[in-house]
Amino acid sequence: MRLLLIGFGTVGQGLAELLLEKEQILTDQYGLKVQVVGISDMLKGSIYNAGGINLQQALKLAKSGKKLSEMPDNFDGDAVSLITTADADMIVEATYTDIKTAEPATMHIRTALEKGMHVTTTNKGPIALFYHDLAKLAKEKGVQLLYEGTVMSGTPLLNLIRETLAGCTITEVKGILNGTTNYILSEMEQGLAYDDVLKKAQELGYAEAVPDADVLGWDALAKVTIIANTVFGEQCKPDDFPCKGITEISSEAIADAKSRGKRYKLIGKVWRDGNTVKGSVAPEEIDMSRPLAGVMGATNAVTITTDTLGDVTIVGPGAGRNETGYSALVDIIHVGGLR
Amino acid sequence: MRLLLIGFGTVGQGLAELLLEKEQILTDQYGLKVQVVGISDMLKGSIYNAGGINLQQALKLAKSGKKLSEMPDNFDGDAVSLITTADADMIVEATYTDIKTAEPATMHIRTALEKGMHVTTTNKGPIALFYHDLAKLAKEKGVQLLYEGTVMSGTPLLNLIRETLAGCTITEVKGILNGTTNYILSEMEQGLAYDDVLKKAQELGYAEAVPDADVLGWDALAKVTIIANTVFGEQCKPDDFPCKGITEISSEAIADAKSRGKRYKLIGKVWRDGNTVKGSVAPEEIDMSRPLAGVMGATNAVTITTDTLGDVTIVGPGAGRNETGYSALVDIIHVGGLR
Repeated sequence: MRLLLIGFGTVGQGLAELLLEKEQILTDQYGLKVQVVGISDMLKGSIYNAGGINLQQALKLAKSGKKLSEMPDNFDGDAVSLITTADADMIVEATYTDIKTAEPATMHIRTALEKGMHVTTTNKGPIALFYHDLAKLAKEKGVQLLYEGTVMSGTPLLNLIRETLAGCTITEVKGILNGTTNYILSEMEQGLAYDDVLKKAQELGYAEAVPDADVLGWDALAKVTIIANTVFGEQCKPDDFPCKGITEISSEAIADAKSRGKRYKLIGKVWRDGNTVKGSVAPEEIDMSRPLAGVMGATNAVTITTDTLGDVTIVGPGAGRNETGYSALVDIIHVGGLR
Repeated sequence: MRLLLIGFGTVGQGLAELLLEKEQILTDQYGLKVQVVGISDMLKGSIYNAGGINLQQALKLAKSGKKLSEMPDNFDGDAVSLITTADADMIVEATYTDIKTAEPATMHIRTALEKGMHVTTTNKGPIALFYHDLAKLAKEKGVQLLYEGTVMSGTPLLNLIRETLAGCTITEVKGILNGTTNYILSEMEQGLAYDDVLKKAQELGYAEAVPDADVLGWDALAKVTIIANTVFGEQCKPDDFPCKGITEISSEAIADAKSRGKRYKLIGKVWRDGNTVKGSVAPEEIDMSRPLAGVMGATNAVTITTDTLGDVTIVGPGAGRNETGYSALVDIIHVGGLR
């Protein structure tokens, strides 16, 4: 299995580390030899070597802030040109999410699929905006398009639904899809004000300097759209769903809810309503007796309502270097031969 | 896909109902035509028809307490003789668990594997006592041995670990594996005495007249052994692990734990300790902030600790007609062609 890594930030580097760490397991347990033959990153440049590039060296350069193009395998071209030129079986698309245009990620994925390469992506843009087009193209070309890492990082929500809940009809998917806001709400329960907790979250690296994508619910909304597209088969875009963040929730409201046995959570959900599929992101008071209420801090959790099993809930990390890198790894294992 | 149902009690009937209900989905989504060609039940007799038996009629007879042998497809022989004779691709072993001998289930499974038939079982006995022998035989014969329903009924714990956590190293699996005891402990939190809650559980059908297998922890112990065998690759038997039930927990102890932010749960766990694998079943005080503490009533929940993702928790039903029937259905879909 010859791989191209498109994007060599946190996720790409996390995956590269896992590939080195788990080389033996991949061979022994899955009969899988994975070789990274090329990397392209908008800031760090591109490298290519049909015989396999030196991942340790690439990681070392990236960590010390140097360009990959310092390596002997320097490739003179951007991601699209690398995908077009390279002799490879699969790409890992892990560039930065642009939820308005989904570019350049969608172009990378389309180029790879057109060429008959498998794709896994951790990028929410293409799956939220163009899933059906891309899935159709993958099917035509007889290759796989996987995207486990777009929701809950490596916690296997989407593979869980597709594989281990095969044959169930899913009527609702509902949960805590954003770790930053869950951390803020958890901390506010100690009586701290929103602004103070946000500042602390920013200091800890949980929230960005401009926290809008998290606190206004946009990140959760992208994930809701991905679930609607992939699990429910809808053709929808983020704008189709109402979205409200956590900025209007006071610590007093949180204390009041608690006194009534409830806890505020920012809930993203998608559900069947007769023949239509609806979705939303909004804060909700969750009863303390429900599994979602007990999920604190930066953890994510989703309850899947099914016809046959009732509710199944999965709880796990929603972000992180290793965790998101792993989502690409498990997709590679599935393409390469799980059994 | 031609099936034999071995055992036509709750689970076998639950599966038969699902096969009728989901016939269209199986064809449309998985290209799978499942035909039950034979059923054998120790009490209800055996039937066989190479062209497919009438499931509706079989269900109707079973529900009205009549024998299957009243059907025109009456087969004059027991389960082993049906498996030996029948032209089929897969058996569903869903007879009653005997955790001391694992018979006659193991004989059924062995006969089917020897003949080159795939097997799914919901029977804890064979997987707790003879997993490695049976898995070796399945491998030699090039067929699959699946067993999702032996732990947490259809909630996909074992498939989750094998498929969607592929490539992760599992260091601990820990959780609430028995719904009856979790229901009893949940109710005792309201201040009721153990004996009163047990009586209520028996009236509701959650606990059996002789409740030992549940309340003394033996059912959870069988599941712990299955996890040790299948997830951790150990060769072990239930007797290898310490086991303590819930009969010595008073409602006072429960109230005392609650006052300290803790909640009693009957916890089954398996974990790596250096180069060895350990297991146990015992009541534990779980901190209220942990996902397992929030799991109440007859629900099951397991936290899987991994090298790469940290903790992933799955919560879902641990028993039930449809739920356990579904575990066999999802295994059938996996054998028949998930993709």
